[in-house]
Amino acid sequence: MRIGFIGLGVMGKPMAENLLKGGRALTVFNRSRPAVEALVSAGAHAAGSPREVAERCGVVVTMLPDSPDVRSVLCGPDGVLEGLSPGKVVVDMSSIAPTVSRELCALVEERGADMLDAPVSGGQEKAEKGTLAIMVGGREAVYERVRDVLDLMGRSLHVGVCGAGQVTKLVNQTIVAANIAAVAEGLAFARRAGADPERVFRAIRGGLAGSQCLEDKAPRMLEERYEPGFRVELHAKDLNNVLQTGRDLHVAMPLAAQVMEMMQNLMARGCGALDHGALGRYYELLNGVSLKP
Amino acid sequence: MRIGFIGLGVMGKPMAENLLKGGRALTVFNRSRPAVEALVSAGAHAAGSPREVAERCGVVVTMLPDSPDVRSVLCGPDGVLEGLSPGKVVVDMSSIAPTVSRELCALVEERGADMLDAPVSGGQEKAEKGTLAIMVGGREAVYERVRDVLDLMGRSLHVGVCGAGQVTKLVNQTIVAANIAAVAEGLAFARRAGADPERVFRAIRGGLAGSQCLEDKAPRMLEERYEPGFRVELHAKDLNNVLQTGRDLHVAMPLAAQVMEMMQNLMARGCGALDHGALGRYYELLNGVSLKP
Repeated sequence: MRIGFIGLGVMGKPMAENLLKGGRALTVFNRSRPAVEALVSAGAHAAGSPREVAERCGVVVTMLPDSPDVRSVLCGPDGVLEGLSPGKVVVDMSSIAPTVSRELCALVEERGADMLDAPVSGGQEKAEKGTLAIMVGGREAVYERVRDVLDLMGRSLHVGVCGAGQVTKLVNQTIVAANIAAVAEGLAFARRAGADPERVFRAIRGGLAGSQCLEDKAPRMLEERYEPGFRVELHAKDLNNVLQTGRDLHVAMPLAAQVMEMMQNLMARGCGALDHGALGRYYELLNGVSLKP
Repeated sequence: MRIGFIGLGVMGKPMAENLLKGGRALTVFNRSRPAVEALVSAGAHAAGSPREVAERCGVVVTMLPDSPDVRSVLCGPDGVLEGLSPGKVVVDMSSIAPTVSRELCALVEERGADMLDAPVSGGQEKAEKGTLAIMVGGREAVYERVRDVLDLMGRSLHVGVCGAGQVTKLVNQTIVAANIAAVAEGLAFARRAGADPERVFRAIRGGLAGSQCLEDKAPRMLEERYEPGFRVELHAKDLNNVLQTGRDLHVAMPLAAQVMEMMQNLMARGCGALDHGALGRYYELLNGVSLKP
């Protein structure tokens, strides 16, 4: 069964390459040409539109920036919906609003096809290594049918009905945002209160304050090392989906809302392309301290 | 060298018992009698006042609820200060405001004695097992002189000058508070947005959202199991010290301030004696959901 892949960006390109390496027949589509040419020279076929990808392939994977992009690629002229027929499966691996996922899922099902939302966690490096965490929402039987395709890109886990993958991703992004901000808030406090942030980090990492964010981001903050990594502006996009979903469903998200404002401030200062560990810089500016020794 | 121990509460009593088990000659003082009698029957001597403890012992350990208690035991009538003489060491293991620690340190040094602030992390169980994490502020040479005493109660780490131990503890409590609230915020969002919080927990624990708080508190929240553990009212006391220190030093602590308000709300609802994982209950009430399946 031929696999289609739409969206060959920083994440999508290595993911598609892993499908090729896994021996899958691949048809790709992307707005800009260079990524398409790289995939074609590695053995993929190029399609002229998302519709054509859907006509040729049994499984269509999309990996796009945000909700409007996925909606446009599926529902726009020459979109995926026009090329779908019963039995085909759309796997949207973009990180978008769960409400949009559910809306698109209904449209795909109207064509007799199936849709899974399968956003990923882990950056470019894990995309290249094929070790992403993939959170899958949708019908379990459909998941089982495409599981071997997902396995070529990472470790997948079925978490519930359509939209549940996106919800899981948003929970992940909420917790990560708050945990990074907490690390920054703590280290800036340490500096202002006359303790050495580096020793504080070593003293607390083994206890209940220990976290992946502390391990990954505290050393970055102490060295003011903010090359990405995962960019502030992408994390802010995810928090926007958290808060928009919260507004749609009436869920109060006080921490997500607060960290979103911190990220807005970073972006206003031109720091949007830095790693989200740059929340350390937000707190440096907020409290007039340097975390670096 | 005889060791003095003042404050035989839930934490202090097992800590003092570990000093006795370690073969140390121990003199104790406590306001209420039963804990004193338990220690005396295990081999300790009882003193009639904090002053008498300081007169008899080379090292005086204090383990008391909050800043006013430590100030009163040191500076009050028949207090520790009255019994100090050059060469003696006060080790305050209470969790109090760093500014108060520094003020008391100066008073102790006026008597020619030395003081360390050495707050602990880890609850009653770790106090009993002698496996607390001890964060020590003060002169390093003084720390080396009493290190073997601290070793009987846990693993100690020297983090800086006087007050730095308290600062480290407050950083720890800030990060833990925010991390627990983030777990609760994420799981409540999952429920409202139609995903199963338990599956979401399993899907994200291995990634960047992973933390000790997620591992310890998510299962409690999913089962609504809030027996302490570490009580909300004690964590709120620590956050009060964070925020008060922030006000003294002009450090903005937006996350600590926000979680403090959540804990106030829990206490207003009579949940102050529950484990701090009860932030899960705060979010259940906030968003009209149950985390329990």
